[in-house]
Amino acid sequence: MDQRVAVLGAGSWGTVLATVLAENGCDVTLWARRTEVADEINHSHTNHKYLPGVMLPEAITASTSISDTVTGKDMILFVVPSHSMRTIAGEAAPWVKKDALVVHASKGFEVGTWKRMSEVLKEELPPEQGVRIAVLSGPSHAEEVIQKCPTTVVVASVCQETAERVQAIFINSYFRVYTNPDIIGVEVGGALKNIIALASGLADGLGFGDNSKAALITRGLAEIARLGSAMGAKPITFVGLAGVGDLVVTCTSRHSRNWRAGHMISQGKKLEQVLEEMGMVVEGVKTTQAAHALSANYQVEMPLAEQLYAVLFTGKDPAQAVKDLMTRGRTGELEEIIQGW
Amino acid sequence: MDQRVAVLGAGSWGTVLATVLAENGCDVTLWARRTEVADEINHSHTNHKYLPGVMLPEAITASTSISDTVTGKDMILFVVPSHSMRTIAGEAAPWVKKDALVVHASKGFEVGTWKRMSEVLKEELPPEQGVRIAVLSGPSHAEEVIQKCPTTVVVASVCQETAERVQAIFINSYFRVYTNPDIIGVEVGGALKNIIALASGLADGLGFGDNSKAALITRGLAEIARLGSAMGAKPITFVGLAGVGDLVVTCTSRHSRNWRAGHMISQGKKLEQVLEEMGMVVEGVKTTQAAHALSANYQVEMPLAEQLYAVLFTGKDPAQAVKDLMTRGRTGELEEIIQGW
Repeated sequence: MDQRVAVLGAGSWGTVLATVLAENGCDVTLWARRTEVADEINHSHTNHKYLPGVMLPEAITASTSISDTVTGKDMILFVVPSHSMRTIAGEAAPWVKKDALVVHASKGFEVGTWKRMSEVLKEELPPEQGVRIAVLSGPSHAEEVIQKCPTTVVVASVCQETAERVQAIFINSYFRVYTNPDIIGVEVGGALKNIIALASGLADGLGFGDNSKAALITRGLAEIARLGSAMGAKPITFVGLAGVGDLVVTCTSRHSRNWRAGHMISQGKKLEQVLEEMGMVVEGVKTTQAAHALSANYQVEMPLAEQLYAVLFTGKDPAQAVKDLMTRGRTGELEEIIQGW
Repeated sequence: MDQRVAVLGAGSWGTVLATVLAENGCDVTLWARRTEVADEINHSHTNHKYLPGVMLPEAITASTSISDTVTGKDMILFVVPSHSMRTIAGEAAPWVKKDALVVHASKGFEVGTWKRMSEVLKEELPPEQGVRIAVLSGPSHAEEVIQKCPTTVVVASVCQETAERVQAIFINSYFRVYTNPDIIGVEVGGALKNIIALASGLADGLGFGDNSKAALITRGLAEIARLGSAMGAKPITFVGLAGVGDLVVTCTSRHSRNWRAGHMISQGKKLEQVLEEMGMVVEGVKTTQAAHALSANYQVEMPLAEQLYAVLFTGKDPAQAVKDLMTRGRTGELEEIIQGW
């Protein structure tokens, strides 16, 4: 293989993807913001904060310099929070090799512009890079990939050749990569599922069970497809790994930050308090704002997202929000789903 | 409301649906095969084998006589295992009131003929009953409905009026009922999800994680939609409660018999041994045979169902089956899904 790859972001997902690539024979440079993290990776081959107990391959070199990390690499993989994407892409841009593949694995919209991450990358990188931009998404807890649990993901790009090249670099016997031409659908699915994960944490915290969670996932999927298709996605993408798959894994796992945030809200905590206690990015909170703005822009009904917005930002009682959802008028299920199709 | 309803089948789901109906103001007669069960329901208002610790409404009367149960009722609800549907429907047929609604909540195909349950009902009941047949399905653990956890289900019938009448009888503040015109899709979704639940138990037993389960659910959904649409279903139904919703709830719950059977198989037990130890119907086993037969009939590829069939009926090593699924040729995800759409 002998691909030289830059991975920007040494959180758990960035470090695990760097490991997959190193095991596939790539020469990997992993950019970490903090010197301690880079030093630890270089000297002890560990990243204890994000992947406790895991030994990383020696083929991973860490650096705190974006220019050193990016220069001359065949593929640049961005795994940074959505709010840092524009800044980091801008810093990396001058050093990106002309024919390099540019991939991101971040889930969210840019706050305020509500742009997708590949749109942000496209704006920050030279125009000729556009066709070589791809997104990697799907149901993939980092802690399971590092243990080589069978995992399936999807790579989407407007350019099929780009998607297939990225697929070839990532695929192996425990990490099965499918391609998908619908970059909009894959990004929208990855971002919006965090809303439903937050709502699932909330429902679990209210003592509801699996029936309620399945309802949230199913009705949430219909909303996601509805907004996504208004934004230009192919609805069928939401039936795939970046839709149903990611939704299921995020909503049924208690590892998810979004689930935890929702659970804390159900226990009566205020949003600010939850964010302060967690001390980490909770993408689902910003994505709820994004859905609120985007559903108005595109004139798409999103009853779940609206109720969650009311709970998070206007102090609505979560139990009342559930009641309002359950007692809406009687409807046919396809009438609601079909709007997205 | 004042509907007079017969519920045939006093297992956990039949008893819980009888309770929902009684709480909605229906006059409910519940048919139980065994005298002890009927006596217990009539005298103690409990059904300890299937719903330990639950007090049933006094508006439920139990009977061991099908003719007494069915005669004069406005709605007949069949909640019996798929293998008894034809016999019980045949016994009930002479007593079904001419304009009665006929609903079933059973998930599976008839062994051998591989007919759907509504087809079996249609064959056993007088022809004029056809338009009044409906199926109730969706993500609904009985143990949660009895605790009034918010639950959503779907009622499908070829006749919209029938679906709406059944919806009106069942709906309340914790049991939200949607209608759907696609009875084929709703029945196929409800039956085939049991295969994926079995496979999930198997995957969990092999030590795989949530990523693998999300992969099973997503790729399983694609297979179900593929077969379903070949059988005449609307693919979009599989995005709804009887598809995604039921799949999620069954695959992520350890209460499911199918999950438990799959788990036991993963631990090296033979199928006969598992069925003997469980001493209960495991619909997913018969449904795997159904999928094997139906996929051949309709010439539809079902890689997951095929691997599971090989594990259950030809002694294939489960780990090898997973390996074979993970290392198939590289593909685009929509190419596989789209065949069903």
